[in-house]
Amino acid sequence: MRQAGRYLPEYCAVRAKHDFLTLCKTPELAAEVSIQPVELIDVDACIIFSDILVVPEAMGMELVMEEGNGGPRFPHPLRSRADIDALKVPDPNRELKFVMEALRLTRKQLNGRVPLIGFAGSPWTLATYMVEGKGSRSFRHIKELIYNNPKDAHALLEKLARSVASYLNAQIEAGAQAIQIFDTWGGILPQEEFREFSLRSINLVIQLLRRNNVPVILFCKDCGHSLEAIADLRPDVVSLDWTVDIGRARDMVGSYVALQGNMDPALLYASPERIRTAVQKILEKFGKGSGHIFNLGHGILPDVPVEHAKAFVQAVKNESPKYHR
Amino acid sequence: MRQAGRYLPEYCAVRAKHDFLTLCKTPELAAEVSIQPVELIDVDACIIFSDILVVPEAMGMELVMEEGNGGPRFPHPLRSRADIDALKVPDPNRELKFVMEALRLTRKQLNGRVPLIGFAGSPWTLATYMVEGKGSRSFRHIKELIYNNPKDAHALLEKLARSVASYLNAQIEAGAQAIQIFDTWGGILPQEEFREFSLRSINLVIQLLRRNNVPVILFCKDCGHSLEAIADLRPDVVSLDWTVDIGRARDMVGSYVALQGNMDPALLYASPERIRTAVQKILEKFGKGSGHIFNLGHGILPDVPVEHAKAFVQAVKNESPKYHR
Repeated sequence: MRQAGRYLPEYCAVRAKHDFLTLCKTPELAAEVSIQPVELIDVDACIIFSDILVVPEAMGMELVMEEGNGGPRFPHPLRSRADIDALKVPDPNRELKFVMEALRLTRKQLNGRVPLIGFAGSPWTLATYMVEGKGSRSFRHIKELIYNNPKDAHALLEKLARSVASYLNAQIEAGAQAIQIFDTWGGILPQEEFREFSLRSINLVIQLLRRNNVPVILFCKDCGHSLEAIADLRPDVVSLDWTVDIGRARDMVGSYVALQGNMDPALLYASPERIRTAVQKILEKFGKGSGHIFNLGHGILPDVPVEHAKAFVQAVKNESPKYHR
Repeated sequence: MRQAGRYLPEYCAVRAKHDFLTLCKTPELAAEVSIQPVELIDVDACIIFSDILVVPEAMGMELVMEEGNGGPRFPHPLRSRADIDALKVPDPNRELKFVMEALRLTRKQLNGRVPLIGFAGSPWTLATYMVEGKGSRSFRHIKELIYNNPKDAHALLEKLARSVASYLNAQIEAGAQAIQIFDTWGGILPQEEFREFSLRSINLVIQLLRRNNVPVILFCKDCGHSLEAIADLRPDVVSLDWTVDIGRARDMVGSYVALQGNMDPALLYASPERIRTAVQKILEKFGKGSGHIFNLGHGILPDVPVEHAKAFVQAVKNESPKYHR
């Protein structure tokens, strides 16, 4: 999950001098902020600093990051079959070379301390941003597309799946030691449409990966209703948000995938004592044995006190050995 | 679910002359916009036009509705035990008299054409707004409250449960023929906290109701993971959002509660033909027999073409009789 961010004064210091996309596109800066959480809060893996929307940008879409609360925006969202057909499947070692360089540099600077994780957005999640153009509450345009023109939607999703797969394969070649696929928006769909539009295209990504023993982590937010269908795609790890009971999830799919998660990220606003209790409860729910990567159920939130993030990592390190021996 | 709104030109015409809270607080205007969907799109029940946040306002909080995209806002959110203790349990026939008058007037103007539904927000949902003060993505403040000070949270939720129950009892006395409890924010919680902070206080509301054969509908958005716990509170009807499979829900709890729902509201952006197919699929999933109130899985969205809303209602009326005979 996202580890770097505004809760770290050291991140804010870098960010004060450069805008968000410059950070993503300058390997030295991306490496610097990627490694900050490893050094500052002592996490035992490093996730590369980047943004899922660099892929649509590499496919030919103009991407704008608005400062303040605006967030990312595509000023020319996809609204027709012609828009979809005009997108290209990028060569990740050309259009997304800055990510590969950031990975190589980060890997070098980590120097074996902890493993490095690469990532990408799921085809469905990228499509949602590309068709809506900006944040949405109703998701009107992407839903019009799937309900009225499912063929066009599948054309877009297949193109995205091929782009995402080649991007992740390039990340593996560049040194990523695990990769995570983020499906942020699968949860806005009814279950059948989630399978048809999100899982089907994630399946294509996974089929196209040259995994070479690099574990694949799949995170579908707000999709606890389809845990078995998600695990059936056979990632190595299924990542759980905090609305899923990890004990029940283990009973359902724990015999064939590992589980990652799943503490409510907002618990880092609570006291260190309360954080420790919450860590213990999740460990207890998962139970004894291997196959659990302890994590938050989503990225770390802004304004979390750094001391609380440290207390969280420390609590996991202190409490978990007795469960996983 | 919310039926009146910006998709209706007739609603926009009234709204152009009065702000949102004036509509809520002027019984003649509230009755007028409540009845519009009955006359314009031919729905077979009428839900009173109001807002869940009139209850916190009646408890003593200043409520501001910002025009544009701002939405409702409490300029002085609850941030301490003293803030919570300062809230009063309102007398609904005094501080919320305008709702009772709107119900009486609407009931009179409906003149038996269709039944009239009253509603309230769940204690947890109201607490979330009252503590955050405005929209939130992290829900930092309400989560700090429950994780750090659960006793204070329960004090607030109990006061809210008593306020909501007396408000709903007054609505029943004023002529509401069914009531719905909306838990919009239960889904931001882990399952255990959902039971402890949301369901427990909804249970108190239901226990305090003088139901007098008035059906109670309970809608917990994004809480499909806890369907059995929701049904165990014994409302008459459990309302489902569109991420739940209504066939499986019927198998689980359909023998002791009726089900309402659960079409994706965004389907009203699709073509009338596509809407009809979606209606058929949901009817097919629920299957034959009684105990299904066909509805959207949430309120009607802005910008839905009126013709599509009409086509939806017509499709339900045409297609459902063969299932429910």
